Amino acid sequence: MADTIKVKKSVVKSPFWVRYRSLIADEAINYQWKIMNNENNTDEAERSYALRNFRIAANLEKGHHYGMVFQDTDVYKWLETVAYILKYEKNEDLKKRADKVVKLIGKAQESDGYLSTYYQIEKPDLKFKQLQQSHELYCMGHYIEAGVAYYKSTKNKQALDIAEKMAVFIYNYFLSINHSYQYDGHPEIEQALVKLYSCTKKDKYLNLARHFVSIRGKNTNFFEKQNKENNIEDDPFPEMRRANKNYFFDSVPLKYQKLNGAHAVRALYFLSGAAGVARLKNDKILESEVLKLWNEIIHKQMFITGNVGQTSNGEAFTQDYDLPNLTNYGETCASVAMILLARELEENNYRAEFGEILEKELYNGALSGIGLNGKNYFYSNPMETKDNHLKKGFSRERRQKWFSCACCPTNITRLIASLDKYIYVVKDRTIILDQLIANETEFSHDIHINVLSSLPWGNRVKIRILNPQQIKLHFKVRLPEWSDSNEINVIGNDSLSNIENNILDVSFAQDLKIEINLDNQIHFVKANPKVRNDVGKVAIQKGPLIYCQERADNIGEYENYIIPKNCEVKTYFRNDELNGVEKIDILNAKYQQWTSLYSYNSIKTNKKVLTLIPYYAWANRMPRSMTVWMESE
Amino acid sequence: MADTIKVKKSVVKSPFWVRYRSLIADEAINYQWKIMNNENNTDEAERSYALRNFRIAANLEKGHHYGMVFQDTDVYKWLETVAYILKYEKNEDLKKRADKVVKLIGKAQESDGYLSTYYQIEKPDLKFKQLQQSHELYCMGHYIEAGVAYYKSTKNKQALDIAEKMAVFIYNYFLSINHSYQYDGHPEIEQALVKLYSCTKKDKYLNLARHFVSIRGKNTNFFEKQNKENNIEDDPFPEMRRANKNYFFDSVPLKYQKLNGAHAVRALYFLSGAAGVARLKNDKILESEVLKLWNEIIHKQMFITGNVGQTSNGEAFTQDYDLPNLTNYGETCASVAMILLARELEENNYRAEFGEILEKELYNGALSGIGLNGKNYFYSNPMETKDNHLKKGFSRERRQKWFSCACCPTNITRLIASLDKYIYVVKDRTIILDQLIANETEFSHDIHINVLSSLPWGNRVKIRILNPQQIKLHFKVRLPEWSDSNEINVIGNDSLSNIENNILDVSFAQDLKIEINLDNQIHFVKANPKVRNDVGKVAIQKGPLIYCQERADNIGEYENYIIPKNCEVKTYFRNDELNGVEKIDILNAKYQQWTSLYSYNSIKTNKKVLTLIPYYAWANRMPRSMTVWMESE
Repeated sequence: MADTIKVKKSVVKSPFWVRYRSLIADEAINYQWKIMNNENNTDEAERSYALRNFRIAANLEKGHHYGMVFQDTDVYKWLETVAYILKYEKNEDLKKRADKVVKLIGKAQESDGYLSTYYQIEKPDLKFKQLQQSHELYCMGHYIEAGVAYYKSTKNKQALDIAEKMAVFIYNYFLSINHSYQYDGHPEIEQALVKLYSCTKKDKYLNLARHFVSIRGKNTNFFEKQNKENNIEDDPFPEMRRANKNYFFDSVPLKYQKLNGAHAVRALYFLSGAAGVARLKNDKILESEVLKLWNEIIHKQMFITGNVGQTSNGEAFTQDYDLPNLTNYGETCASVAMILLARELEENNYRAEFGEILEKELYNGALSGIGLNGKNYFYSNPMETKDNHLKKGFSRERRQKWFSCACCPTNITRLIASLDKYIYVVKDRTIILDQLIANETEFSHDIHINVLSSLPWGNRVKIRILNPQQIKLHFKVRLPEWSDSNEINVIGNDSLSNIENNILDVSFAQDLKIEINLDNQIHFVKANPKVRNDVGKVAIQKGPLIYCQERADNIGEYENYIIPKNCEVKTYFRNDELNGVEKIDILNAKYQQWTSLYSYNSIKTNKKVLTLIPYYAWANRMPRSMTVWMESE
Repeated sequence: MADTIKVKKSVVKSPFWVRYRSLIADEAINYQWKIMNNENNTDEAERSYALRNFRIAANLEKGHHYGMVFQDTDVYKWLETVAYILKYEKNEDLKKRADKVVKLIGKAQESDGYLSTYYQIEKPDLKFKQLQQSHELYCMGHYIEAGVAYYKSTKNKQALDIAEKMAVFIYNYFLSINHSYQYDGHPEIEQALVKLYSCTKKDKYLNLARHFVSIRGKNTNFFEKQNKENNIEDDPFPEMRRANKNYFFDSVPLKYQKLNGAHAVRALYFLSGAAGVARLKNDKILESEVLKLWNEIIHKQMFITGNVGQTSNGEAFTQDYDLPNLTNYGETCASVAMILLARELEENNYRAEFGEILEKELYNGALSGIGLNGKNYFYSNPMETKDNHLKKGFSRERRQKWFSCACCPTNITRLIASLDKYIYVVKDRTIILDQLIANETEFSHDIHINVLSSLPWGNRVKIRILNPQQIKLHFKVRLPEWSDSNEINVIGNDSLSNIENNILDVSFAQDLKIEINLDNQIHFVKANPKVRNDVGKVAIQKGPLIYCQERADNIGEYENYIIPKNCEVKTYFRNDELNGVEKIDILNAKYQQWTSLYSYNSIKTNKKVLTLIPYYAWANRMPRSMTVWMESE
């Protein structure tokens, strides 16, 4: 059997996503650079000083560390974003800047491999002594991801060397007898080591990842014990000492783990790392433990936009079916993490469901995290909000220019910049088109695939596969769940095709054409009545996009509108609004006006047009009050 | 003009309420006595030691104070309950016990009039020095209410003397220059002084009440300043130091006051006291300030059962229209306080609305606070709950035998025992039948009224008024809002009647008979769509009773059921269940079963009978999962 197929270069062609990628490459990356250098000192953006911290740690400048203990990761995720940008197109100026950053990071790294500017500058005696909150491995993990990406994209060897030096140092420290039951309060190192292994193929990195995956939850009360042992009284986040037992996702071994109370990003980063280890170590038990929690999330704990982590209290998962629209958290990072996890699971044992959720996050839960101008960001993503809700203790109803805890901005930009990674899943002689995003991709063995797709707006997908070496292939296409019926036309000599579990599977050994007309009619989605907040309401979906009603398009408040039983609907594309967007008008929406708190009698309504926009596009105009779930007849 | 009419003796005849009153007189009062004496030491009931605290303060026993700083009030509200019981019927044994309690309280009271067993035993140096949390005036206020009631019922002069001695002491202390801007963290003294004035007609008590009403909110940060001044570090409730700014209902003068964040019982006790002062001082501005907040509550912050105070976080009011069913608090004491406030407002300027809310609280929000056996109590009253919800951080789904903070049990018993006080509102020559509860009442001027009423179950009310002195009277009857149409038959020579604002007003000067057939058909009540938790749901009301569905009567979980558009309904009385109760069957309820979290398609349903019971009767059987608001077509 010949070599397994590999992606050589994939280029996104979808106008929708090309715009976003360009936004990151042309705007966001420079904007973030200025923020990290404190060159954008408007009143509204939080200070960063992230690069200055490295200069201080490298003894190039004097001063104190500024910001969060994990401030370093903003620089790392920025660097990772740059890596993906440079993979696409040359940009000497940007590359020079990034090379300098790598050099600076190299100078800040200690000779043994350790790097955490906070601990180096402020608390050198406490290195690895307050792991509950120190984020040291979280920081180094993010560097390792960035270093690997930057090396792969630019062949900058130092970027990889720094990462390997870190990993070897961590290996030696955390596998020594004294520390072999220690781990970081915030998972991340696990998935980073998986990536480092995938790049270098050095077993020790994978073994270290497996080690961290396997010990979590087995050293009961480790953090408490360590804090006591080291007389730690002064935590970076004092209130987290009293966090619920499961906040750190380490109260029990993974096998017994529950979501309730777990910090969403911690849990998901860990699961993503565990899924990678499971695949690479062929550990079916570990895989099933991850899948069990994946199923819990997507069947009981996920907002319809894909957002997860329902409460601001610990940025955590809560009860099954507890999906409050007004107070939901749904951190942007958690949606990015869902994508990372879905992708790992896709590579283990492909199922259409993984791609479905990945798509949902891409177009909704994660994408909402960045403004249309690329320069403002949501930390939490409410399902429903009113202007000035923040004042009332609810989530923000506007994206911010920067946060003091700035994990989300660079997380969403590194995701969008690396979108090409998420289009195909390739294994042996099987190529799966997971995301129906227009692209042009070169594979090994001279295989070339061109996908024309008008998603998210249109419903047509045209695939042309050139296979000059006439290699026997399986080409699979994920057929989205939101498409009730598909017209599929496969054109290719001697090809065989079938559909099972929402996957079109074509086996062939020549060139091939596939044309698919999806059914992207509007869906009125209802929630399981266990979700008490959504009873009597519908959400509206067209193609992969969840829609919402925003105050900017409509008269009155969202609670005035009722979606009628027999909806008359008009859809239309507007080039001049929200960077090009398909709007939906409910032509016969009912408009109610109440005066009392309770009523024995039905309230009279009149007819009004209700205009909807995609969820990702909300909060880019004034006023911003919005709801995803709408009262329905 | 002859003297104003007065109620001489009113006896409740309604079988529904007679059962409850007997339960209090025969069972609850003895049960609570045992609890307060620690003679009922089951595992499930919290310890009380409330009477022992008095013996220690009186130097009759040695030891430490046990329980809350306001533990004394359990004894006071018990004594007040006894007062109302003895007003009805002789009970020598009970009277002896209560007389002894009065004597003990007298012994515990200091010579200057001060009484707080906690401060006397544990912190004599801190008397009145930590008013934010000390509850000293709250405690003495409750004694004053009890002392007045016990004196009026039994003519025990010592009971009143103790109260007056307290009041005089408080007057001298808090009107002295040094303390004239001080007040208690927990209002209560205001309404107590109003009652003491009404009993004694001594102006100084009313003036003191007015003083406390007028200064609250005008000495900005008083508690903070006092704590600092007195170096108070050790609070009875340390977490309350950081309570939100409005928790103590003193952040701004009443005129500017908002509900959000205010501890519900504190706010309502204060408003009740203020309403009393407004009436007795004929202060229209004060009255309008109280009414403004009353309107905010009933039109924007009240559950359909009358429960108020939406969050356990500070037992407080929250945002307008924030009425969460699963996590609502709705403390029993807050519903009792709503009744106290409604009653004060009724006596100021009668409106049917006040009686309507009073009725709602009586039959629903407050009554839910006590079990059918009189021996277990709800602190919070959820609108929706599942078995084991407590474990999940939600409200309790079972009544408890006693609480460590035992304010509610004696509050609900003193309310029920004094029900006769709430039937009529009398002013000059007008008698208003506010509550359509069967009763037999003697008034001054030989007026005798007999009301036959089958409420809450039936719809007929027959009123017979004997007026042998042929006094010119107005007799008014509140016609409930839930009765869409009333058949009214007034039989009396030369009587004139009209109906305005839900009040039947008959003027006459002889005997009179009135027969009213109310319309007590079932109502399907909807909530204002600003209450996002109730969208797409209905609550079911029959007469004054809000109904709910409880797991004990039905197959499956409440979220399986949908109330259909054209309901087929059967109502039937069951003598053998829940101490006699009218049940409602929805014969054609729809039963849905979901497997997914979200669905693009409608879920198939089948038909099932859904049985409902009155809300007050829930949680007296197993299993207890329950909802008031039900999904509707």
